[in-house]
Amino acid sequence: MNTFGRIFRISIFGESHGLMVGITIDGVPHGIKLSPADFEGDLRRRQAGAKGTTPRVEPDLPEIVSGWFNGYTTGAPLTITFRNTNTQSSDYDKQRAIPRPGHSDFVAYKKFEGFNDYRGGGHFSGRLTLALVAAGVVAKKVIPQITINAKLIEAGGITDIDKAIEEVQRQNDSIGGIVECIADGIPIGLGEPFFDSVESVISHLAFAIPAIKGIEFGSGFKASRMKGSEHNDTIIENSGRTATNNAGGITGGITNGNPLIFRIAVKPTSSIAKPQQTLNVKTGKIETLVAKGRHDTCIALRVPVVAEAITAIALTDLLLIEKTRKNR
Amino acid sequence: MNTFGRIFRISIFGESHGLMVGITIDGVPHGIKLSPADFEGDLRRRQAGAKGTTPRVEPDLPEIVSGWFNGYTTGAPLTITFRNTNTQSSDYDKQRAIPRPGHSDFVAYKKFEGFNDYRGGGHFSGRLTLALVAAGVVAKKVIPQITINAKLIEAGGITDIDKAIEEVQRQNDSIGGIVECIADGIPIGLGEPFFDSVESVISHLAFAIPAIKGIEFGSGFKASRMKGSEHNDTIIENSGRTATNNAGGITGGITNGNPLIFRIAVKPTSSIAKPQQTLNVKTGKIETLVAKGRHDTCIALRVPVVAEAITAIALTDLLLIEKTRKNR
Amino acid sequence: MNTFGRIFRISIFGESHGLMVGITIDGVPHGIKLSPADFEGDLRRRQAGAKGTTPRVEPDLPEIVSGWFNGYTTGAPLTITFRNTNTQSSDYDKQRAIPRPGHSDFVAYKKFEGFNDYRGGGHFSGRLTLALVAAGVVAKKVIPQITINAKLIEAGGITDIDKAIEEVQRQNDSIGGIVECIADGIPIGLGEPFFDSVESVISHLAFAIPAIKGIEFGSGFKASRMKGSEHNDTIIENSGRTATNNAGGITGGITNGNPLIFRIAVKPTSSIAKPQQTLNVKTGKIETLVAKGRHDTCIALRVPVVAEAITAIALTDLLLIEKTRKNR
Amino acid sequence: MNTFGRIFRISIFGESHGLMVGITIDGVPHGIKLSPADFEGDLRRRQAGAKGTTPRVEPDLPEIVSGWFNGYTTGAPLTITFRNTNTQSSDYDKQRAIPRPGHSDFVAYKKFEGFNDYRGGGHFSGRLTLALVAAGVVAKKVIPQITINAKLIEAGGITDIDKAIEEVQRQNDSIGGIVECIADGIPIGLGEPFFDSVESVISHLAFAIPAIKGIEFGSGFKASRMKGSEHNDTIIENSGRTATNNAGGITGGITNGNPLIFRIAVKPTSSIAKPQQTLNVKTGKIETLVAKGRHDTCIALRVPVVAEAITAIALTDLLLIEKTRKNR
Repeated sequence: MNTFGRIFRISIFGESHGLMVGITIDGVPHGIKLSPADFEGDLRRRQAGAKGTTPRVEPDLPEIVSGWFNGYTTGAPLTITFRNTNTQSSDYDKQRAIPRPGHSDFVAYKKFEGFNDYRGGGHFSGRLTLALVAAGVVAKKVIPQITINAKLIEAGGITDIDKAIEEVQRQNDSIGGIVECIADGIPIGLGEPFFDSVESVISHLAFAIPAIKGIEFGSGFKASRMKGSEHNDTIIENSGRTATNNAGGITGGITNGNPLIFRIAVKPTSSIAKPQQTLNVKTGKIETLVAKGRHDTCIALRVPVVAEAITAIALTDLLLIEKTRKNR
Repeated sequence: MNTFGRIFRISIFGESHGLMVGITIDGVPHGIKLSPADFEGDLRRRQAGAKGTTPRVEPDLPEIVSGWFNGYTTGAPLTITFRNTNTQSSDYDKQRAIPRPGHSDFVAYKKFEGFNDYRGGGHFSGRLTLALVAAGVVAKKVIPQITINAKLIEAGGITDIDKAIEEVQRQNDSIGGIVECIADGIPIGLGEPFFDSVESVISHLAFAIPAIKGIEFGSGFKASRMKGSEHNDTIIENSGRTATNNAGGITGGITNGNPLIFRIAVKPTSSIAKPQQTLNVKTGKIETLVAKGRHDTCIALRVPVVAEAITAIALTDLLLIEKTRKNR
Repeated sequence: MNTFGRIFRISIFGESHGLMVGITIDGVPHGIKLSPADFEGDLRRRQAGAKGTTPRVEPDLPEIVSGWFNGYTTGAPLTITFRNTNTQSSDYDKQRAIPRPGHSDFVAYKKFEGFNDYRGGGHFSGRLTLALVAAGVVAKKVIPQITINAKLIEAGGITDIDKAIEEVQRQNDSIGGIVECIADGIPIGLGEPFFDSVESVISHLAFAIPAIKGIEFGSGFKASRMKGSEHNDTIIENSGRTATNNAGGITGGITNGNPLIFRIAVKPTSSIAKPQQTLNVKTGKIETLVAKGRHDTCIALRVPVVAEAITAIALTDLLLIEKTRKNR
Repeated sequence: MNTFGRIFRISIFGESHGLMVGITIDGVPHGIKLSPADFEGDLRRRQAGAKGTTPRVEPDLPEIVSGWFNGYTTGAPLTITFRNTNTQSSDYDKQRAIPRPGHSDFVAYKKFEGFNDYRGGGHFSGRLTLALVAAGVVAKKVIPQITINAKLIEAGGITDIDKAIEEVQRQNDSIGGIVECIADGIPIGLGEPFFDSVESVISHLAFAIPAIKGIEFGSGFKASRMKGSEHNDTIIENSGRTATNNAGGITGGITNGNPLIFRIAVKPTSSIAKPQQTLNVKTGKIETLVAKGRHDTCIALRVPVVAEAITAIALTDLLLIEKTRKNR
């Protein structure tokens, strides 16, 4: 489904090589100051062009086409679009019979019985995260009291990320990485039992980001190797502050007043210059594919701002829902 | 929110020490043969009583109270309830001012301003997984072509699980573990772009299970340390079969015809017999808590059947949604 | 779908002659004082037994099975059930091949391919309105500032309702009626553009009540025969008060500060003692049916309290949603 | 909420005098042939310009910006936009302190605390029905087996519609009307108990259309004045065909195999050239307003194609949901 959220509700649309990608946000409170310039910082962080990212660089200018008037949100659905300008479809036309390993090409072909827009991954493209980042910018403005920071803490298994990228570029290969996101200033009590735990809502959005294959909160997988006496965080203040933060700021699915911490695992970019084996679905034979086109050596470099965006979106929705409870 | 799913839609209710826990499933196809005896196997697997689990053993008899007639599902909402019989509330009454570390006690108190049913965790109790398991039994009958198997593959960091439990029991402590779930027989094409990737839907449900703090699909976090050339699964057949399965059966968020594989990290049980420090919220002082009541040394032992249940629920929903697409 | 609402969300289940009917309400604010006795008044108003209603009288005792603790709502899903005690299934068993005209018998048989619980209409029975009334009682407590009153203003086309019923009872026939509902004390601004206008939400719920075939707000159908200069309500105060109330308290789908007024058309009870022609689906022949069982001469008599309930449910949901907007 | 539907799910956005209005449809089956020319017929029917409609005539050219490739739907979200070209904002700027009677001006101002885009009604404008009509065109292509026809059967209380309009135009006033919609070819069994009866879903959408104040199915309000023996439709064939169609093709909320019939009451256009009294919210005094701008004498003239659209949208969603049940 292209829609997510209960009150702050996003609907995404668009394709990599179509006219545009865009997002409609319903439930944006009215009266929030907003201008196209507000998007620049986060969009630039997502932007390709740095070492390890694809040389396809588009201006990525947001157009606020609805829900915005005289510089403020109106309370009506807010739609933001991005025109696609730098599309080289011919690169992809030839590849159609030969699904790229690790890509959605094959499953999209099967699911949509050949009617999918296959150019550059179509609707499955990482380009749609542009829309997520835009929604994240709006969300951050709704919850200015919460600070959210994500960064790439590891690439190809090491923390010296530059080194990791240089090495793998020499091999015409790609690497993955781990992104950590920390949000502070969150009130106690966000999250909805039973199904909408904070972890549930954030992970739902996180796995919508292409290339994400794992998520953990607080000590995460390490927690499975700890004893209860080590893992339990002792509450030391009525504010909920705990001596340690193994829980990553979430107890029983509910925010507990400590910083929210999660990490996501980003797989290596599927498209690599190195020759690979794959099936030619027309001939039924395995053949060698040398991927052309413009690709990222380490897509994980571009994920932190997207991780922040989905965190802001999730927290905004949960915070607005929590408002329905208090101040009877 | 207590509801999850688009077509096969579950609504959960109940508390640990209230009258009952229950679940209503909407969208169950009519004409599915079902009897209370069908629940026995999975409920017994979830049952406490084995080494490492709490000695609180209740009969856990399901009552199918609606949507069921003459031994078959009717197509109307199917509700299954479990009466709570073995509730010792007094254990919990005394503890109210002293939130148990790692438990939902404190956040539930704050979120619901003291009105929450605090006995045994109330609505946050692991006892609600009883209802998930029951819904899982129904889901498995809707998709008999898919086999789902989960098991505990590691406890306290080692694979000899008996040994891990015995050791920690001697220490009056608890341990976590890792549960792996594999589902086979899934058609290509399940999962919905953009937000309802298979990973999104499964992780959303997985994090509704108390004590889960991480999830990974296929190679998961290990993928973040692999190169593209290592991680990409080569398609070798038109069926979608790949030579390796680093993707865990999901590409671009969509099932790819290979076995679905995921692992979840279960934190150690929060309640331990060992004395712990915690805040007395009334006095504002840190004091020593020695938890009473009946607890699991390793709650992860009881998670595999719950992991199967949420997998069955997720796949049933996605499979029914996929039916709206084909056979125009 | 058995679920309705975004924040104050109800899920209904049960059958006329099954074990019970029930409703789960998610999103009930915590801390609302509630007791089984609070349901008595409204349940009695819905109760059969008066002139013109079926002699099937059940005690209709609500059991609050979750979300309720120490006399207050807890914030967890609140489930209320009603055991069915006075069920005479044999009346209905014989009728299976002969669908009652105007009843859901035939469509339910077709939709569920014969697996539906056909006894007394099963899940389609008017008995499920018991659950709506119970949810309405809870909703009224969430919005005590709003008063809601519905009454039967016309039966069989005349306002002397007693006379209308006596006459039609002599003919072994049934009659319909019109119920008017007025709600006062509603703040300006409830209702959500575009799809969740107040009229949309109320009508959605109203048409879930069996036997409702029309709804109009304010001047309604009469408005279609008025001129703009007659229909437009002049605003005379900053409170939004208008000189007339042709709009029925709703402008542009949003409450305007004036009393909300709507009327619903209730069709005559389908079950009548008078012989009727219908198809025997087994023989394929038209035959004469003389309906047995216990029926209402004028089901509309029992509708006012249900109309109040759905109004309270709708307004509670819209009011809670509106809370997400204000007090930035 | 700007979103409606479970499987065939529409999200609407835009304002009367903003950049555009648009709609995103999720769940459109792939492989449906579609071209911009397909929209022409229905858009022209909605078009202003005829006698009794506003002289504001825009070209209303749809742009299919996503979910469409090589002339076919792809299965990804389908977005259609309409640029606003003929906007004269100055007409509206002056009116801000003086809410037009019968319009959303006042409630929108209050709900959104003055941040709403007030030009031409903003998001509340009838111009958004353009997007509904576009979605209706797509829906009609998904269910080609169903024919849907709506027409204005009465204006200002009489059936000679031309005469009614001429007369009221001479008076600088406006009139309402009644639109009847009939859909044929619908299979038995659409509609979902308990809350998503066919009447519920259609009425929910119908009341999203500006100016609609009533809806009735089959005999509707007249049914409330009939006896059971008159109203009950005798089934005469195993196909479900009934001798009469008082139920309007819906029994128990479910389609019964007969033509679906409903009528909606359209109020007279609120904007009239005739002077009216209204409150100046700044001065707090009642003053005389002479509405300028371009208006319809009888907005009901433009409603039939919108009524068809919402019927097509509702039936498409219900039909796709029904697919999840059959052919186990």
